[in-house]
Amino acid sequence: MKSDEIMDVALRRGFIFPSSEIYGGFSGFYDYGHLGTLMRRKWEDAWRKHYLRLNSNFFEIDATNIMPKNVFVGSGHIENFNDPLTECGKCHSRFRADHLIEEFLERSAEGMATDEMSKLLKENSIPCPKCGGQLLDVKMFNMMFEISVGSTGESEVAYLRPETAQGAFLTFKRSFNTLRGKLPMGLAIVGRAYRNEISPRQGFYRLREFNQAELQIFFDPDTIEDHPNFDSIKDVKLRMFPLQNRSTGEVDDITASDLNKNYGIPKFYIYHLAKIQEFYLDKMKFPRELFRFRELSADERAFYNKIHWDVEVYTESLGGYKEMGGLHYRTDHDLGGHQNASGEKLDVNIEGKKFIPHVLELSFGVDRNFWTLLDVFYKDEGDRKVISLPKVVAPFRAGIFPLQKKGDLEKVAKNVYDSLSECYDVFYDDSGSIGRRYRRQDEIGTPFGVTIDFQTLEDNTVTIRERDSMDQHRVKIEDIWKNI
Amino acid sequence: MKSDEIMDVALRRGFIFPSSEIYGGFSGFYDYGHLGTLMRRKWEDAWRKHYLRLNSNFFEIDATNIMPKNVFVGSGHIENFNDPLTECGKCHSRFRADHLIEEFLERSAEGMATDEMSKLLKENSIPCPKCGGQLLDVKMFNMMFEISVGSTGESEVAYLRPETAQGAFLTFKRSFNTLRGKLPMGLAIVGRAYRNEISPRQGFYRLREFNQAELQIFFDPDTIEDHPNFDSIKDVKLRMFPLQNRSTGEVDDITASDLNKNYGIPKFYIYHLAKIQEFYLDKMKFPRELFRFRELSADERAFYNKIHWDVEVYTESLGGYKEMGGLHYRTDHDLGGHQNASGEKLDVNIEGKKFIPHVLELSFGVDRNFWTLLDVFYKDEGDRKVISLPKVVAPFRAGIFPLQKKGDLEKVAKNVYDSLSECYDVFYDDSGSIGRRYRRQDEIGTPFGVTIDFQTLEDNTVTIRERDSMDQHRVKIEDIWKNI
Repeated sequence: MKSDEIMDVALRRGFIFPSSEIYGGFSGFYDYGHLGTLMRRKWEDAWRKHYLRLNSNFFEIDATNIMPKNVFVGSGHIENFNDPLTECGKCHSRFRADHLIEEFLERSAEGMATDEMSKLLKENSIPCPKCGGQLLDVKMFNMMFEISVGSTGESEVAYLRPETAQGAFLTFKRSFNTLRGKLPMGLAIVGRAYRNEISPRQGFYRLREFNQAELQIFFDPDTIEDHPNFDSIKDVKLRMFPLQNRSTGEVDDITASDLNKNYGIPKFYIYHLAKIQEFYLDKMKFPRELFRFRELSADERAFYNKIHWDVEVYTESLGGYKEMGGLHYRTDHDLGGHQNASGEKLDVNIEGKKFIPHVLELSFGVDRNFWTLLDVFYKDEGDRKVISLPKVVAPFRAGIFPLQKKGDLEKVAKNVYDSLSECYDVFYDDSGSIGRRYRRQDEIGTPFGVTIDFQTLEDNTVTIRERDSMDQHRVKIEDIWKNI
Repeated sequence: MKSDEIMDVALRRGFIFPSSEIYGGFSGFYDYGHLGTLMRRKWEDAWRKHYLRLNSNFFEIDATNIMPKNVFVGSGHIENFNDPLTECGKCHSRFRADHLIEEFLERSAEGMATDEMSKLLKENSIPCPKCGGQLLDVKMFNMMFEISVGSTGESEVAYLRPETAQGAFLTFKRSFNTLRGKLPMGLAIVGRAYRNEISPRQGFYRLREFNQAELQIFFDPDTIEDHPNFDSIKDVKLRMFPLQNRSTGEVDDITASDLNKNYGIPKFYIYHLAKIQEFYLDKMKFPRELFRFRELSADERAFYNKIHWDVEVYTESLGGYKEMGGLHYRTDHDLGGHQNASGEKLDVNIEGKKFIPHVLELSFGVDRNFWTLLDVFYKDEGDRKVISLPKVVAPFRAGIFPLQKKGDLEKVAKNVYDSLSECYDVFYDDSGSIGRRYRRQDEIGTPFGVTIDFQTLEDNTVTIRERDSMDQHRVKIEDIWKNI
């Protein structure tokens, strides 16, 4: 199983660890080890660099994880962010009714009413998976973690945010006024979110505490049919998987301008599809055939999303195409909802035109992207295991290997380590044969090895070894920079 | 009031915002605006660069914010992390008894038993600050936020971490094995922590959700009397404020080697004091006289801290020296406690010697450091307001100012903006007079202004204006890099 192989490397080398493991673990929670932390931070930095540069009016903000109840009344989470649960009448264990229906009846329960689910459970005599007992009626269960803030006498109900997005909506007015008072304006948040998943499945894919990178673009809905830079992407072919292709599984490889003409998707939306694809194919270097945008049906998408395509990457260890993120045209649902609930005006006045800005949301699950990078780039080549991660997300840029532990070679190697450390994360390793040191770095995705040997003392050159080709060549110490 | 002045700039320009403000705010919670996010991230990066480079075996990890109850049994937080509360018999509001004693009787209640506090409240007839009613007996109240994980039937009690540190102790064994199996080993965590403060006071200083940067150094206690690099800092004068100087308020400016000789503090501890001072004076550029290490008395420090000096910076807006962090010699309290509670062996075996590593903790409150930077470097000079932040933490490195909005000047300015953006955060501003644009950047701490004018089109030079000296000089476009 590929998922076991990746989990083995991840645990053994320090990418991820089960949270609170010495206390027996904690289902749905994972920690990041030293390699995972370096890699995730690099992914987040690459994400910022790519998406925040799309417009000089896009910025990152940071909001609290805990927010008071009223926020989630306004956002609709109190009313709508619920999972259908059924309880066993005998052992009182609880289960996701929609998951049971999907497993036992092999049909989607997405968007199904609780009554209908209760009926299906009864009609098909679906048993409790734990004890075989009879399952009771399906009820809705809110997926947010509730928290009481303050001492008992004057405490206030609050929740851990189930998505980072709300922070951007809540500070919209402040940000708009402190920035340029212009649209489009983008507010990104990279941080934690929390969902009380009933039975977190699929290891690292569905976590109770997870990381998101989201960008909310506030814009004037009258401008959605165009984007000032559309011409720069009009001939880019986008890998689209529309609803009507569900039966065949085929991807339409179609240019941005044809997508606009044939599918009627507005240019403002398409421009951001193109930039997302660019991130996955050009920055993350995913093979083109593993990537697609998947259109969601009205049943599958949230009612307020007028256009919604998911970003998917084929992830072998998870059994198929998996959602990495989504591009959501949320209209004025968010600002409108908060305006109603808070009584605070959230419209803007731009040259005499008053309106509530619409939102285009670029939303990504950081941990999923992290896992899928390991999945796609991991190979067991028999004599070595290697993760061919793109340089931009590899935990270390290079391993530094002195042929001997002590003496002059150590001195030179430490100097190389120190000077490369100014700019890169590099790893110093002086134990074992050079071959073993190469293998150790291959397994954690380090693109380059720099070996300091006796020839180094004579002519000031080192050997640079490339991870993927395993080619080796000698360069002057002062030229290492240009070669890694 | 300086604190009002800084809060005014912070809110108006986008450093910080009250969390959930459109819903009336949320006491003890703040969001970071676009400037605050840039600045805090730069502080955190500078912190990593400084402290993680102290040893090539120091690394950052990342642990979950939610951890199960057993973790906090093992850490001692369930038993010890409690605040003394008193309730008003009439209006049932609750208050921190120690704060009331400090306010009304002007004496410290640190380390005082609840009985003694109850007695003092009664004897001195301290009234309820809200309604004047009589206060009831003092009881302990745990300061962690409790969370229920899972659905009601099978839910598990968990808590939001009150400090980042526990994550490093929990993954110690895994990290030790995946790293080099050598000591000292350092595990840093930069992230959120949460405390249910009863009455969060002092605005941004005592938050319910806050950010910490902590480094846990695991080491062999037999090596505490030395540090391999002690010689490099032995002549550095450290600003120490020991217990015996409390009455005079005087700081001993004493070399590291004299500190070792005269105070008997071990060299391993002193080395890290020196590196902390270096961070504050050389990297953060705080004036030397505003910085000191404050020794804590046995009453003030946690019982497991064998040596504990706080890092303090004089913060005018908060009325004096304020705690920015601390250096804590925690002995084997943490690993020992988790070994006992979990039953998992946490000792190491180094060349046949078996022992539980000791911990030296470098702990910093990120938000406090952020606020104090604004405080120390903010000046109202009458004709301008300026925050003379060091380059390394200023939100923007430079402002880019084309003299005209459109045409050739815009083209050149956008090119300058794009090329500087590759390496720095820069801000493009084409509105208002150049003087006003300078002032706007002064107020948010931008060290340089780059003006593109008509002469630029002739000779390819721009004007660089420095924030602090307000000096201006012309340089070639290709030399901007070397001048900012």
